[in-house]
Amino acid sequence: MAAAPVWSVDPRTGKQREQVAVEATAQEVDVTVRAAHEARASLADRAVRSAFLRTAADQLEAAKDGLVETADAETALGPVRLTGELARTCYQLRAFAGIVDEGAFLDVIINHPDATATPPIPDLRRYKVPLGVVAVYSASNFPFAFSVAGGDTASALAAGCPVVVKAHPDHPALSELVAKVLRRAAAVHGIPAGVVGLVHGFEAGVELVEHPLVAAAGFTGSVRGGRALFDAAAARPAPIPFHGELGSLNPVVITEAAAAERAEAIGAGLAGSMTLGVGQFCVKPGLVLAPAGAAGDRLVKSLTDAVSDTEAGVLLDHRMRDNFIAGVAERAELAEVETPVTPGAGSQHTVSAGFLTVAAEKLAAEGAYDLLLEECFGPVTVVARYEDEGELRGVLSRLPGNLTATVHLSSEEADGEGRGAEILAELTPLAGRVLVNGWPTGVAVAAAQHHGGPYPATTSTSTSVGGTAVERWMRPVVYQGVPEALLPVELRDENSLGLPRRFDGRLER
Amino acid sequence: MAAAPVWSVDPRTGKQREQVAVEATAQEVDVTVRAAHEARASLADRAVRSAFLRTAADQLEAAKDGLVETADAETALGPVRLTGELARTCYQLRAFAGIVDEGAFLDVIINHPDATATPPIPDLRRYKVPLGVVAVYSASNFPFAFSVAGGDTASALAAGCPVVVKAHPDHPALSELVAKVLRRAAAVHGIPAGVVGLVHGFEAGVELVEHPLVAAAGFTGSVRGGRALFDAAAARPAPIPFHGELGSLNPVVITEAAAAERAEAIGAGLAGSMTLGVGQFCVKPGLVLAPAGAAGDRLVKSLTDAVSDTEAGVLLDHRMRDNFIAGVAERAELAEVETPVTPGAGSQHTVSAGFLTVAAEKLAAEGAYDLLLEECFGPVTVVARYEDEGELRGVLSRLPGNLTATVHLSSEEADGEGRGAEILAELTPLAGRVLVNGWPTGVAVAAAQHHGGPYPATTSTSTSVGGTAVERWMRPVVYQGVPEALLPVELRDENSLGLPRRFDGRLER
Repeated sequence: MAAAPVWSVDPRTGKQREQVAVEATAQEVDVTVRAAHEARASLADRAVRSAFLRTAADQLEAAKDGLVETADAETALGPVRLTGELARTCYQLRAFAGIVDEGAFLDVIINHPDATATPPIPDLRRYKVPLGVVAVYSASNFPFAFSVAGGDTASALAAGCPVVVKAHPDHPALSELVAKVLRRAAAVHGIPAGVVGLVHGFEAGVELVEHPLVAAAGFTGSVRGGRALFDAAAARPAPIPFHGELGSLNPVVITEAAAAERAEAIGAGLAGSMTLGVGQFCVKPGLVLAPAGAAGDRLVKSLTDAVSDTEAGVLLDHRMRDNFIAGVAERAELAEVETPVTPGAGSQHTVSAGFLTVAAEKLAAEGAYDLLLEECFGPVTVVARYEDEGELRGVLSRLPGNLTATVHLSSEEADGEGRGAEILAELTPLAGRVLVNGWPTGVAVAAAQHHGGPYPATTSTSTSVGGTAVERWMRPVVYQGVPEALLPVELRDENSLGLPRRFDGRLER
Repeated sequence: MAAAPVWSVDPRTGKQREQVAVEATAQEVDVTVRAAHEARASLADRAVRSAFLRTAADQLEAAKDGLVETADAETALGPVRLTGELARTCYQLRAFAGIVDEGAFLDVIINHPDATATPPIPDLRRYKVPLGVVAVYSASNFPFAFSVAGGDTASALAAGCPVVVKAHPDHPALSELVAKVLRRAAAVHGIPAGVVGLVHGFEAGVELVEHPLVAAAGFTGSVRGGRALFDAAAARPAPIPFHGELGSLNPVVITEAAAAERAEAIGAGLAGSMTLGVGQFCVKPGLVLAPAGAAGDRLVKSLTDAVSDTEAGVLLDHRMRDNFIAGVAERAELAEVETPVTPGAGSQHTVSAGFLTVAAEKLAAEGAYDLLLEECFGPVTVVARYEDEGELRGVLSRLPGNLTATVHLSSEEADGEGRGAEILAELTPLAGRVLVNGWPTGVAVAAAQHHGGPYPATTSTSTSVGGTAVERWMRPVVYQGVPEALLPVELRDENSLGLPRRFDGRLER
């Protein structure tokens, strides 16, 4: 059987640009994973790791023009957005380099012997070690930041884990280019090229998660694809951690007082957030709970005006376009669902943004309207109008897990009057990031960031953005009674590396 | 259908002592889980949680005599060991109370807005919140420390999670007594009794892990039972974290130089460790790699003498006794396996300790001898004699994951001469705890402790003993742009609670 070709496709025309590669066979996946496994010793030195990450950022920046051009040709996301995304990606690589240098992520804990404890405590010295080869499944919608050189790869390398990336079929040419840049950066530091493997093809992705030498996986994508891989990871003879970011509705609550205070600004802000990047963000607000009545009507009017002004856009691929058009049509057909601006097909290759409205009470019980509680990828949102707090709470109680949950409060509510704190407490169980008077699109790279949430937002309790993302790829080991001469330098009393640590109960920083 | 009775059985006689309860129906499991879920708000206040944990310890100590008597009647572990285990359990409850008070486990990270970041960072404040109801599966071999009031329960309550415990059928009467003590302690602090639920029965255990309101599970037990529950947790519509400690061989390497230096002491120490608690520890050394030749012969001789002197003991139940007798017989039947002291049946209700020897080369390739690389619960170990380093490394490369790995070194090797560091590096990938010149039995409760390891030692990268065990039951949440007035007090700038935290990159302790 001939190897299946991997084509780069222009979503603006639907035409094939070039054949980039062929899909990897099981044997090729095996070779790639073994090469990554062999490369792990080259990442043992933290100083080498952080230098590698910084060189990777430098070289990605140096290659910017060609990378952005290829990315735009394959994704139609536009050079402005893609230039920004590449800058974010480089910032992220450098942020992880800083984390590696600081060393707090090693989580060093030292206990000297304590005969007064029950039972007595021997000499115990614990830190975290890398898990091994990490499989990274790239996202369609972030060709830089959640792909070959994205957060999963950056955090895995920071942890000391080589990666094998499964390229997303929406940007195979860019994936090859970025992998080459990473390997060039690795070579500068004497790290073998195998440290960043790259494979193409659906079957190769399945082989990858089942490979005995793959120790963990990171995934950003759909519920269906992510769940299938999660299931495969769990069904292995030796299961592995699978950190998948699968899907999110990202509910937004608008209080009556907030709408009364600034319906127009909220409507315009919402339009901007839900249509940003042609609605192709995992944190796109997909369900908005707005009050019934006059203030809510003003909000809908403002949203209508702003969304009507939005130009049609090109989605990442034609399958997504088909799914979007079918998805919004199916939702719009539900009885008593209205479409103040009808989303759907634009020209031959584009889609136009729109939104649906529905009475919140329709969502309060299981039934046909549950479709409105499922993510629909693309520039559409559902505005559910609630009559009272009971209806609002009823809808919230039916939501699956989310990456984000947002509430818009009036100035007085934000100052602590009214139900602001209560609503925050109600939203917290639903999501990993809770916002007040903001929009969920835009996920900052920061130590405090948490990009994750209850299932299906993520398949674990971890984050794929921010400083703590590195924790996903490590496991603790404790050394008991190991003589000073044999201890890893990180665990010696003298702390010549100046690591933050817990030392006989005291936190040292 | 009548509810199946749950009997307390005396393993010293095999006779039923009393009917303790009946197995819980699906409906009873549901009621118990819902009661736990309703109790979660009562754990929101950290001060209440730590006070509850301390009261629980006080009241368990106050009830000591009755508890130890019942425990001994059901497990035959003896009053000395059980009194010590209860003391350990109370120490552990208080240790977690201290962790709750300190608050470092909340992992507070605060980022003020930073316009210079790419993309700009908004106000982000992150900490960890409890996951919800935790299902705890009790162990047979630790009726106190890994059961109703054990490490999973203590760490879950510390995290703010109510628990529903699945009682182990080997000590149902004790389980009821301990649950009552915990509920009395809860009542002292106004916490509803539902905060510690208890169910009996195999089917109830399956219902529990599948219940939609159960948010995570902790398990200590066999590979077969643990894997079945892990699979059920992963197959749920919304999968949950399953922290299972399943099985471990706990390899021990004796270097040639160590054997030459102190073969007799090592043999005697090994005999003590492998027969401690009638060999019923998850960290029992189950495979010992000893050198061929004269020094190794001395070690085997010393082990022979010491094990021969060990009195027969009662295992936790008769099924275990049957499995032990069958398991050692099957192993002893392998060609060229010798039994310097033959393990097996003692009197009608006891077993006698013993050990097997085999040439290490037999274990180097897949085949019938793989049975010797599987845990055999009870007082038996396998001594594999290696001719050279190649054989040693060959066996190590074939081992599954372990809770512990141990090496005995000579004084010079411990001082850094020879292959000590190299062997430590080879053992580290195999286990969660690596020991030099000690024995793995005895798991201290300490901040640095790690009781876990690569599968099947555990189904996750977490620990079930030690301070970081609390992390298993929490997930991070970040608040973005939340006004001071609405922020949880833990996340405000002023830090009135004095929490250790990361504040704009700086570690504050």
